Amino acid sequence: MTADGSPMALALEEARAAGARDEVPVGAVVTDAAGRVLARAGNEVEARHDPSAHAEILALRAATGARGEKLLADCTLWVTLEPCPMCAQAASFFRVRRVVFGAYDPKGGGVEHGARIYAAPSCHHAPEVVGGVRETESAALLRAFFAARR
Amino acid sequence: MTADGSPMALALEEARAAGARDEVPVGAVVTDAAGRVLARAGNEVEARHDPSAHAEILALRAATGARGEKLLADCTLWVTLEPCPMCAQAASFFRVRRVVFGAYDPKGGGVEHGARIYAAPSCHHAPEVVGGVRETESAALLRAFFAARR
Repeated sequence: MTADGSPMALALEEARAAGARDEVPVGAVVTDAAGRVLARAGNEVEARHDPSAHAEILALRAATGARGEKLLADCTLWVTLEPCPMCAQAASFFRVRRVVFGAYDPKGGGVEHGARIYAAPSCHHAPEVVGGVRETESAALLRAFFAARR
Repeated sequence: MTADGSPMALALEEARAAGARDEVPVGAVVTDAAGRVLARAGNEVEARHDPSAHAEILALRAATGARGEKLLADCTLWVTLEPCPMCAQAASFFRVRRVVFGAYDPKGGGVEHGARIYAAPSCHHAPEVVGGVRETESAALLRAFFAARR
């Protein structure tokens, strides 16, 4: 993690931008070993009519695209919400070194909750995981989004 | 399942075509309630430099694209190999009614093995699952592919 946590600030920006587009406000950033931002993305499920277009998948895919390489073994995935099982497994397939997330997601998360992807015997690469980074802001964004829609 | 299992025959064709492109030979097909084929795809992980470009994800995405709708609630996903946790969760997010797969995958599967996505408390839609359809052919394709690379 960089000292000032700035990649998570970018992820929060992406989350806010997603919310403004009526997407669930989740944002993701991929940084390389030097801390350079390779890709950033927010949820695009509604815009793409694609339930798999989560911020994490889009950012991972864009990061490999940016480098022309298939794997991201030196990289960190920053995301404002605990990844779901789909995105957790995707991060494993991309061989991401570390996953840093904001809010915990007891209902839909797949890292510290539910399927606990990295603890399953079918997981052949488990990234280092850091949860709760700027958790309060990440969770507040989600709470406000869903409260406004109820 | 249609009486003659023909969508799985198409999925097997996609798997063979993927193998011929040096991709892990897995193929997938999405059919609607009337049995019409909405989309078909093979693995494109190598071609796209994208470890998330599994046949299932590509077929699901193409099927929603073909219909301009976000969900596939009346649809069946046919795939030659037990879906991994990423693809199993994606099928849930697309609200697929049924997942029919060929070979079981004790090492990487996420439906009957490993994370057992549809049994996890974080899974809010569990498709009906039918495994082992044309299992022998599906498994033989994979075995031959990996044997040739060893």
